[in-house]
Amino acid sequence: MGNRIHNAAYQSKVMSAEDAAALINDGDRLGVSGFTGSGYPKAVPIALAARAKAEHEAGRSFRVGLNTGASTAPELDGELALADAVDFRTPYQSDPETRKRINAGSINYADIHLSHIAPQVRNGFHGKMDVAIIELTAIKADGSLVPSSSIGNNQAWLDAADRVIFEVNSWQSEDLEGMHDVFGGLRKAPLDFAIPVFHASDRIGSKYLTVDPAKVIAVVENDTPDRNSPFKPLDDVSKSIASHLLDFLDLEEKAGRLPDPMPAMQSGVGNIANAVLAGLLHGQFENLTSYTEVIQDGMVDLIDSGKLSVASATAFSLSPEYAKKMNDNAKFYRDKIILRNQEISNNPEVIRRLGMIAMNGMIEADIYGNVNSTHIMGSRMQNGIGGSGDFARNAALTVFVTPSTAKDGAISAIVPMVSHVDHTEHDTDLIISEYGVADLRGKSPRQRVPAIIKIAHPDFRPMLEEYFAVAQKVANGQHTPHDLSQALSWHQRMLATGTMKV
Amino acid sequence: MGNRIHNAAYQSKVMSAEDAAALINDGDRLGVSGFTGSGYPKAVPIALAARAKAEHEAGRSFRVGLNTGASTAPELDGELALADAVDFRTPYQSDPETRKRINAGSINYADIHLSHIAPQVRNGFHGKMDVAIIELTAIKADGSLVPSSSIGNNQAWLDAADRVIFEVNSWQSEDLEGMHDVFGGLRKAPLDFAIPVFHASDRIGSKYLTVDPAKVIAVVENDTPDRNSPFKPLDDVSKSIASHLLDFLDLEEKAGRLPDPMPAMQSGVGNIANAVLAGLLHGQFENLTSYTEVIQDGMVDLIDSGKLSVASATAFSLSPEYAKKMNDNAKFYRDKIILRNQEISNNPEVIRRLGMIAMNGMIEADIYGNVNSTHIMGSRMQNGIGGSGDFARNAALTVFVTPSTAKDGAISAIVPMVSHVDHTEHDTDLIISEYGVADLRGKSPRQRVPAIIKIAHPDFRPMLEEYFAVAQKVANGQHTPHDLSQALSWHQRMLATGTMKV
Ligand SMILES: CC(C)(COP(=O)(O)OP(=O)(O)OC[C@H]1O[C@@H](n2cnc3c(N)ncnc32)[C@H](O)[C@@H]1OP(=O)(O)O)[C@@H](O)C(=O)NCCC(=O)NCCS
Ligand SMILES: CC(C)(COP(=O)(O)OP(=O)(O)OC[C@H]1O[C@@H](n2cnc3c(N)ncnc32)[C@H](O)[C@@H]1OP(=O)(O)O)[C@@H](O)C(=O)NCCC(=O)NCCS
Repeated sequence: MGNRIHNAAYQSKVMSAEDAAALINDGDRLGVSGFTGSGYPKAVPIALAARAKAEHEAGRSFRVGLNTGASTAPELDGELALADAVDFRTPYQSDPETRKRINAGSINYADIHLSHIAPQVRNGFHGKMDVAIIELTAIKADGSLVPSSSIGNNQAWLDAADRVIFEVNSWQSEDLEGMHDVFGGLRKAPLDFAIPVFHASDRIGSKYLTVDPAKVIAVVENDTPDRNSPFKPLDDVSKSIASHLLDFLDLEEKAGRLPDPMPAMQSGVGNIANAVLAGLLHGQFENLTSYTEVIQDGMVDLIDSGKLSVASATAFSLSPEYAKKMNDNAKFYRDKIILRNQEISNNPEVIRRLGMIAMNGMIEADIYGNVNSTHIMGSRMQNGIGGSGDFARNAALTVFVTPSTAKDGAISAIVPMVSHVDHTEHDTDLIISEYGVADLRGKSPRQRVPAIIKIAHPDFRPMLEEYFAVAQKVANGQHTPHDLSQALSWHQRMLATGTMKV
Repeated sequence: MGNRIHNAAYQSKVMSAEDAAALINDGDRLGVSGFTGSGYPKAVPIALAARAKAEHEAGRSFRVGLNTGASTAPELDGELALADAVDFRTPYQSDPETRKRINAGSINYADIHLSHIAPQVRNGFHGKMDVAIIELTAIKADGSLVPSSSIGNNQAWLDAADRVIFEVNSWQSEDLEGMHDVFGGLRKAPLDFAIPVFHASDRIGSKYLTVDPAKVIAVVENDTPDRNSPFKPLDDVSKSIASHLLDFLDLEEKAGRLPDPMPAMQSGVGNIANAVLAGLLHGQFENLTSYTEVIQDGMVDLIDSGKLSVASATAFSLSPEYAKKMNDNAKFYRDKIILRNQEISNNPEVIRRLGMIAMNGMIEADIYGNVNSTHIMGSRMQNGIGGSGDFARNAALTVFVTPSTAKDGAISAIVPMVSHVDHTEHDTDLIISEYGVADLRGKSPRQRVPAIIKIAHPDFRPMLEEYFAVAQKVANGQHTPHDLSQALSWHQRMLATGTMKV
């Protein structure tokens, strides 16, 4: 491991991951770094999981509560879940082992807007934070803390925690120094200042995290890479959804409804987002800016092409290939990429001010435009709402994208009534599938129905029409006609028979 | 009628309500003043309703689209609905005749967050705005436009409309001049400035509305009072809900979680809100501020007592008695009350900055904390979401209040699954009934269940416990266990038998 700890006081606190893990107690609430698989601690959690297992084998209880930025990786969420070491988790996850235990009822998961969790902790809504475990790229001679590949809630956890453990990861490029913009002014509201971001490119904070050195109880060295997911080649459905969105934006521009240059864009992760970014690479729009949660491969390409002048986010979410490229060229990218506190990247004030276009994935939508982003068949947690609510509620144009079906066509993404609501009918402007764009703007629920049915898979359209026809006959009101006896029957049928089809 | 039109150019445009109504065409989209029964035009809409009736009798079509601030009054929403003259309505209403037609399917109603509608119109999402009809208190010699008892979207409609009709109402006190704070800087986003409200008391705009005089096609004189609802004496249920909230705030203060002075409060209208305001009048908190939608009787009392230093809102919602008091003493109150654009009174940026406490009514909540504010049994529109989402999403502490039952105990306000979602589980901190406070902060859905069942009416608690027990057995996941076959069965039973009880 390279020597990245240039400060003597911190150097004197270096210890093994096992020794650091021994400083964590049963019942502690941990505030951990990490956002979409980047910048999470990679050694202490594994040691902590081993410790929990040993304690359990000795017949003693050992479980912690876990606050992160967002999703992490197998070394953190996965190991701790496998060790049955987590009793509470917030605000977002996407880990298979954690998901399994959330859905078995053994991990309590509070699914919270990513811009809300830090203020809630600051307001005391989550009790005391015991230990923060934060990954760094380096500690400089003067004690400055160079962040790594995500900021997330790191500054908030450093402020809130009683004790602090750092992991200094020499896999992260030292040239990341200067890419970060850590805003230190986030106190408990009321605040007497505005969040001073007026353009995606505005830098408002420091390059470094700050901490009261007296709280730091351990520093652990490490050189493990971020666990980034490989890039999947774009499939036809994603490409077609992307082209519907880009065609729509072209038309909006022609109609004079799109400001020039195009307002900052947010895009959720995944295949469809990457297809949209690829589409922008070859499209007509110039001078693009991105004010989003995570930096994806497609944004790096857009920066390289000169079409995207700045990408603001709170974390990387790159394929291994692009993570290497980033590490090798961080000196170049650090002028074009800004990593901020997630309270700033997802800040309602800034999102509304910028008049943004927000694009997120979903699990299902109903014929009235309510959107479910989190639950499978009403009860089962998939990932969580993440930052989608921060953007969807406050953007000028709110878009949800989805393939029209899931599970090889057995499930329709358009249903009579969603089995859980994360984004209300009041928050959805467009829903896009491979069959086109449902433009819901300025429409009443009844007026939305034909627009939404048109983008459902053809196999399900007649069933949706039939539902709406019956609902109008039996409902106690024609504003949002529902047949309550059938509203969730598609989900029931799926659970009973393995398909929503009759 | 007193002469309130001191400007010659506007004086020359004075005409009868009938002549003004004749300038409105079939199919026009109207942008009308009015918010919770105050400051709406009172003559032209009646004349327009008469005109529509005459046209219909002559076999011609005549219907308009209607954008307001929020709810209005019988002279506006009621008359136009009775004349079958409305085909589209947004963003909020509470009128019985309008409601009837929304639920009959003859008025298309887009139920939109009150802070969102003006930006949507500015972005072109609602097409062209043809005519604005705006009530004023006076027009000064220099052409300055003195607003009346609400601001709402008035400036936005004056900016957007092709043609403008003013109603100058001499019932409104001339001493209202100076109470208003009209922010004129609201352009289409991206904006390069912050909304400069840092304290409820900050004035950031002008005392007057502005308009391009060339657009003004008519000025109508009028002296009809606002149609304010009489104050209902406080009932025991409201008083007990209020005292639960105030006790909770006392405890929060003792626990060190409440800033001193208490952050600005928002309160929905109605009996419970008035009971909370009455409770504050006799409670321990001093130096209160209010950053809310409407000025209610209780706030006037709090101002008189010296406990409330400033009340910021967009409109009055006063009893006739208090409306008279306001008119008689506007010179006194105009230093303590600020009426703003509803985009500012309900602004997410400001609400989050102030770290507010938001308290709103609801129709029902489910055992996991999802809240329905708008729909009766899933299909039938009651009023609309209004500004509740603006506040609930962005406040530091989000409270929903409700009696535990409706319709003489036949309906439980706590149900297995809500029949519509306006505020998601991600947005609710407290739910309060006369049985106490369900504190949902930092809890997973499963952890919320016992807290919520405890505040349900005792008649329904065993049924809710039974539902949760069965749901855990049959659900495909234990995060939010639901029995989809029974989730909406309480609503179905209510529709079928007139009670949710078995
Ligand atoms: C909604 C969300 C899960 C979709 O994810 P995605 O990767 O785009 O879509 P996928 O099609 O791969 O779906 C993921 C899984 O959900 C399943 N799924 C998707 N739609 C479904 C539906 N309607 N019913 C049941 N399962 C469904 C898929 O089959 C897949 O399951 P698998 O992993 O067992 O194969 C994802 O966007 C998400 O977590 N969103 C919430 C957070 C968010 O929006 N963050 C954005 C940043 S702000
Ligand atoms: C939810 C809301 C309707 C409650 O209103 P309220 O005046 O406090 O409560 P009430 O108990 O008088 O209820 C109003 C009606 O809804 C009915 N109702 C209330 N709860 C019900 C339930 N669970 N099921 C069926 N009907 C219900 C009442 O019976 C009453 O009906 P009625 O007029 O036919 O007698 C009202 O708060 C609202 O419109 N909220 C949304 C907008 C908002 O929050 N604005 C706040 C300003 S930001």
